Amino acid sequence: MGAAAEIPHPFDPLTLDEIEIAISTVKKAHGEVRFNVVALQEPRKAEMTAWLENPETAPRPKRIADVVVIAPGGKVYDGLVTLDEPKIISWVEAVGEQPIITMEELQFVEHICRKDPKVIEQCVISGIKEEDMDKVYCDPWTIGYDERFGSGVRLQQALMYYRPELDNCQYQYPLDFCPIFDADKKEIIAIDIPKVRRPLSKAAAVDYHPAAVEARGGYRNDLKPINITQPEGVSFNLKGREIEWQNWKFHIGFSYREGIVLNNITYNDKGTVRPIFYRLSLAEMVVPYGNPEHPHQRKHALDQGEYGAGYMANSLSLGCDCKGSIHYLDAHFPTQAGGLRTIKNAICIHEEDAGILFKHTDFRDDSVIVTRGRKLIVQQIFTAANYEYVVAWVFHQDGTIQPEIKLTGILNTYSMLPDEDTHGWGTQVFPSVNAHNHQHLFCLRIDANVDGPNNTVYLSDAMPSDAPVGSPENFYGNAFYNRRTKLSTTGEAMTDYDSKTSRTWEICNPNKLNPYSKKPVSYKLVSREALTMLPKPGSLVWKRAAFARHAVHVTPYADDQLWPAGRHVPQTSGEPSKGITEWIGDGSASIDNKDIVLWHTFGVTHFPSPEDFPVMPAEPMMLLLRPRNFFAGNPVMDVPPSYASTPSQVQAGKGAWEAADGMSKLAFEDRETNGHVTKVEGEGGSCCGT
Amino acid sequence: MGAAAEIPHPFDPLTLDEIEIAISTVKKAHGEVRFNVVALQEPRKAEMTAWLENPETAPRPKRIADVVVIAPGGKVYDGLVTLDEPKIISWVEAVGEQPIITMEELQFVEHICRKDPKVIEQCVISGIKEEDMDKVYCDPWTIGYDERFGSGVRLQQALMYYRPELDNCQYQYPLDFCPIFDADKKEIIAIDIPKVRRPLSKAAAVDYHPAAVEARGGYRNDLKPINITQPEGVSFNLKGREIEWQNWKFHIGFSYREGIVLNNITYNDKGTVRPIFYRLSLAEMVVPYGNPEHPHQRKHALDQGEYGAGYMANSLSLGCDCKGSIHYLDAHFPTQAGGLRTIKNAICIHEEDAGILFKHTDFRDDSVIVTRGRKLIVQQIFTAANYEYVVAWVFHQDGTIQPEIKLTGILNTYSMLPDEDTHGWGTQVFPSVNAHNHQHLFCLRIDANVDGPNNTVYLSDAMPSDAPVGSPENFYGNAFYNRRTKLSTTGEAMTDYDSKTSRTWEICNPNKLNPYSKKPVSYKLVSREALTMLPKPGSLVWKRAAFARHAVHVTPYADDQLWPAGRHVPQTSGEPSKGITEWIGDGSASIDNKDIVLWHTFGVTHFPSPEDFPVMPAEPMMLLLRPRNFFAGNPVMDVPPSYASTPSQVQAGKGAWEAADGMSKLAFEDRETNGHVTKVEGEGGSCCGT
Ligand SMILES: [Co+2]
Ligand SMILES: [Co+2]
Repeated sequence: MGAAAEIPHPFDPLTLDEIEIAISTVKKAHGEVRFNVVALQEPRKAEMTAWLENPETAPRPKRIADVVVIAPGGKVYDGLVTLDEPKIISWVEAVGEQPIITMEELQFVEHICRKDPKVIEQCVISGIKEEDMDKVYCDPWTIGYDERFGSGVRLQQALMYYRPELDNCQYQYPLDFCPIFDADKKEIIAIDIPKVRRPLSKAAAVDYHPAAVEARGGYRNDLKPINITQPEGVSFNLKGREIEWQNWKFHIGFSYREGIVLNNITYNDKGTVRPIFYRLSLAEMVVPYGNPEHPHQRKHALDQGEYGAGYMANSLSLGCDCKGSIHYLDAHFPTQAGGLRTIKNAICIHEEDAGILFKHTDFRDDSVIVTRGRKLIVQQIFTAANYEYVVAWVFHQDGTIQPEIKLTGILNTYSMLPDEDTHGWGTQVFPSVNAHNHQHLFCLRIDANVDGPNNTVYLSDAMPSDAPVGSPENFYGNAFYNRRTKLSTTGEAMTDYDSKTSRTWEICNPNKLNPYSKKPVSYKLVSREALTMLPKPGSLVWKRAAFARHAVHVTPYADDQLWPAGRHVPQTSGEPSKGITEWIGDGSASIDNKDIVLWHTFGVTHFPSPEDFPVMPAEPMMLLLRPRNFFAGNPVMDVPPSYASTPSQVQAGKGAWEAADGMSKLAFEDRETNGHVTKVEGEGGSCCGT
Repeated sequence: MGAAAEIPHPFDPLTLDEIEIAISTVKKAHGEVRFNVVALQEPRKAEMTAWLENPETAPRPKRIADVVVIAPGGKVYDGLVTLDEPKIISWVEAVGEQPIITMEELQFVEHICRKDPKVIEQCVISGIKEEDMDKVYCDPWTIGYDERFGSGVRLQQALMYYRPELDNCQYQYPLDFCPIFDADKKEIIAIDIPKVRRPLSKAAAVDYHPAAVEARGGYRNDLKPINITQPEGVSFNLKGREIEWQNWKFHIGFSYREGIVLNNITYNDKGTVRPIFYRLSLAEMVVPYGNPEHPHQRKHALDQGEYGAGYMANSLSLGCDCKGSIHYLDAHFPTQAGGLRTIKNAICIHEEDAGILFKHTDFRDDSVIVTRGRKLIVQQIFTAANYEYVVAWVFHQDGTIQPEIKLTGILNTYSMLPDEDTHGWGTQVFPSVNAHNHQHLFCLRIDANVDGPNNTVYLSDAMPSDAPVGSPENFYGNAFYNRRTKLSTTGEAMTDYDSKTSRTWEICNPNKLNPYSKKPVSYKLVSREALTMLPKPGSLVWKRAAFARHAVHVTPYADDQLWPAGRHVPQTSGEPSKGITEWIGDGSASIDNKDIVLWHTFGVTHFPSPEDFPVMPAEPMMLLLRPRNFFAGNPVMDVPPSYASTPSQVQAGKGAWEAADGMSKLAFEDRETNGHVTKVEGEGGSCCGT
């Protein structure tokens, strides 16, 4: 492990050594157990804040492992293990709760299914030969919650598929029944069989792998390479997992649950290091499917709580997942048996050109400035069975943070009969393939620290004046203003998006005003991606994924309130709802000028279409966290321009700032396009000349 | 002009030769007039469509110049001039109408202001020395509509500023009075003077030009270059102004009014050339300001109709406005006196890497495919006095078209007293500088041609099932569906965005169904950027910019119905409203299975903040036009992947497709970061390996 002597930063994920220490400590005390989680217990905020303020004198927060195990017989324990002097400091049975499902657990189900006589029987009914059971696959899913089985037994549901050939995309051959797997007994305890049977599709495969594409005529050959290079190196520096770039500084953590976790995000404002966010992460998500027929209601994975965006992380690779000059960080996890697992390159970090940062031309004299922007991207990709989620945290030079998610991968599919009526709950995307309507709802957790911990959230709405057209106050009817509504309590803060007022949420520090606008310094959440959770109030999903009931919730900060659907999510009934509803309680808690956390649910509603099949072109979503009244002025005026000339330089005919990218070229020599030659005087040489 | 013998494509803008022919023909007949417009009269659609279908046999549409002149005495004439045999075929006085304001007209006002005794008097009152009138500037704006003066006299309003030094940004020294300029008499006919006077700001300047930045400590020096190169050239081809790229083909026009105009957009779907849009453009915009005090209600420029996105186009330059391998197109216009004006590099065309196009990893075996996307960008920038608009038409390989606008440049500012109450109509962004609330509302014109001219628009809403939780049809409450509402008439089509239902608009061809989904082929307008026009119903802006009353209007196609605020926009009163309201009339016209045009208004509401001053970091907006049920399957499976391995290749340990970008590099040697060395086995070499 190279320089293992380095002391981890208190925000660092557990090192391999630390995971080993925690595992051996637990094994010593409790014998052979299955390890679901061995992860950093994040430092208590009060301690951590004290240390961040005075690293020399304040005590350094201790390293503690958060451990979740399943003991033989299925009992679940939550434990805490100190790592400097290895010691179990807490060990509590989580009665009736099911911890996160590991990749190893998922892998196992398929093999059981293939050997189970009742599953084989159903496969044969579907039209599969008994000797072809090795061509049967399943995507084991969290069962969500099934009232017939409750939470006491650890269960998964097996979404069944067939592959005529090993390399076929299985999602074009879904099967119509759904075995239920008992993870303790390691057997199939039930099979959900629909009343109307849908035999295996006989359609010829449409695959996306190279041999299939070659057989259909091959790849297009008219795409010329684009190379992105940084001959002088990158513009960011890392010290351990703390990155510095363009006035930004923050720590890059990684959790089994949330994947990338960004901590202690600050911006150096002309020498003053100003805190903005204590912690940012994608804290939970849910993907409800809209087909009401049993057992499809169970398809509503809370992928982060039930499988983990860290556990499902892809190992990224150079020139494929990212282009340019890339830095990678690995992720370390335990195995169930108490071994170690490393996901190499779980996080990639790189810069991209961001187009024009600012530009202005004076129309009188053609004096001009044009400055290009740069962005920093901290990215991971995770695969949740069929779906891929590309999660990027994009930092801009102007203080904007842009969380961005791209969806790709493959639709979850179900079988259908020829000419079967989908009843509008899905789309036939390929013969015999019904892709059900679904939503992807994500919950962004914003632990705010805008110029200090005590912040207040305001609704910000664009409103016309109340005064009627023709009245003295609004004679021409053009008056409009920014209506700001303080959210004083957790109850008031349960708010929804309103496109009619271009609603945003301002996270303000009421204790500090902008010197010019006299408004509180703030970061504004701009989200046009807010949406209504379509499962109805009172529905199973509504109960289990309470965070998705509103676009925004705000809670007072409390240690360990990280995951809004609860700590242990699989098989929660939602009665009562876990996580955010517990923290909000009666809604009376003050969030005014307090250390607060804002939870924002956003996403897309996905009505599938044949374009999405057999693999989906990526669909982007993005939010903005923008400084408003935070800076005293444009914070990027000191980014070197590509070209700048002032009126006096234009008059003098000299002195312009010329620093255009020397590598850019005209696409065609002399602008010679097929058959056309258009020579233009003076072109291509000087930059931004008139 | 080089290969002048080439016959222009019927969609091509007028060549310099053609502009000259039109001008000399008009001069011969009408003597000395001021030329406001000499532009292509776009071919009649019926003729053009016939020719596009049969270029060999159908008659080629004739080249005709659309001419607008102002004769001595201020009379305005609309003319049409045939160009093959130069001849005026139409000449009509536009009584009581004011044509577009040219850059030359704008340039002139400042010089008149500086010499006008009443303006000088007001400057002195503001605290400017009489001998400093050369430091007084004005941004001449369209007057919008001022009921005191009507439409008969050609007017501009002069927003006044001061520059202590030539190179200062004037917007930090606004003056509080507003002269009215008569363009025929070439004199100031009135000055609007506020009741409360606001003397010239004494604040020290904050400038963004290099000398100012150097004086404040200089530019940051930690930004390393990023180079983008295409050593094998670009992936697009041009024949004249027709571009082909990744199955796309379209014609790139340019109009004085709309700037970039894209015509005859088709996608080659496995050998079948499928039409999608006959014409796409940004057809109009309006920027209403929200301060109700007279005369600020006049600040609501319809920038395209009143100045022209083509006339205001920037001359773009390599490595500044765009990076990589760029192709440029010029724009040609007349001068007022009948000369010629060329804007070099008015349009840039280039490709960019578009990140991951699609990816999927099978969690069982780590078989994987990762394919990077590419995009084509056709871009222009125009400067409307203080503001810069970066307009990009982004084409994706998967059939998506992404219109994108970035706002940058400088806030329009007004003077304020120290501690003056802005009454919420603006923000003090700098001492004595009040930046008024405003909106940027753009109108995208979509002349649809989805698999043919006869299309129908549907509202598409994401709706929960009506059946209650617990009912047999929706027992678990998770049912939801895509409610599609046909818009049958122009009246029904006046629709607004609804974020609660994630509303989109589907432009369908009801005559052609997708083979799998059996739904009509369609392109879907996805716009989260729709917003409410805040000037109230009945207000001046509401009357003049009727297109902004709703997010979507749909009209039956008619030749020359291009600009939704009317042909001649300056000084329209809005009584009656011009353009789209005239075309919609009583709202009864059928738009069902007809040749239709969809008008979409979108934009941002801008409450200024000190971050925006003195120059604004660019703020992006984007829409998507996405194929839904248009293709039979994912249309980009034949884009070569960066890496692909099938399960059988993973099993065999060989045969994977490896085509990773060979130029990408690790950011740090051996991942050596400041002080940390973490060597990881096998890293950095093979692509996407497990
Ligand atoms: Co989806
Ligand atoms: Co603005």
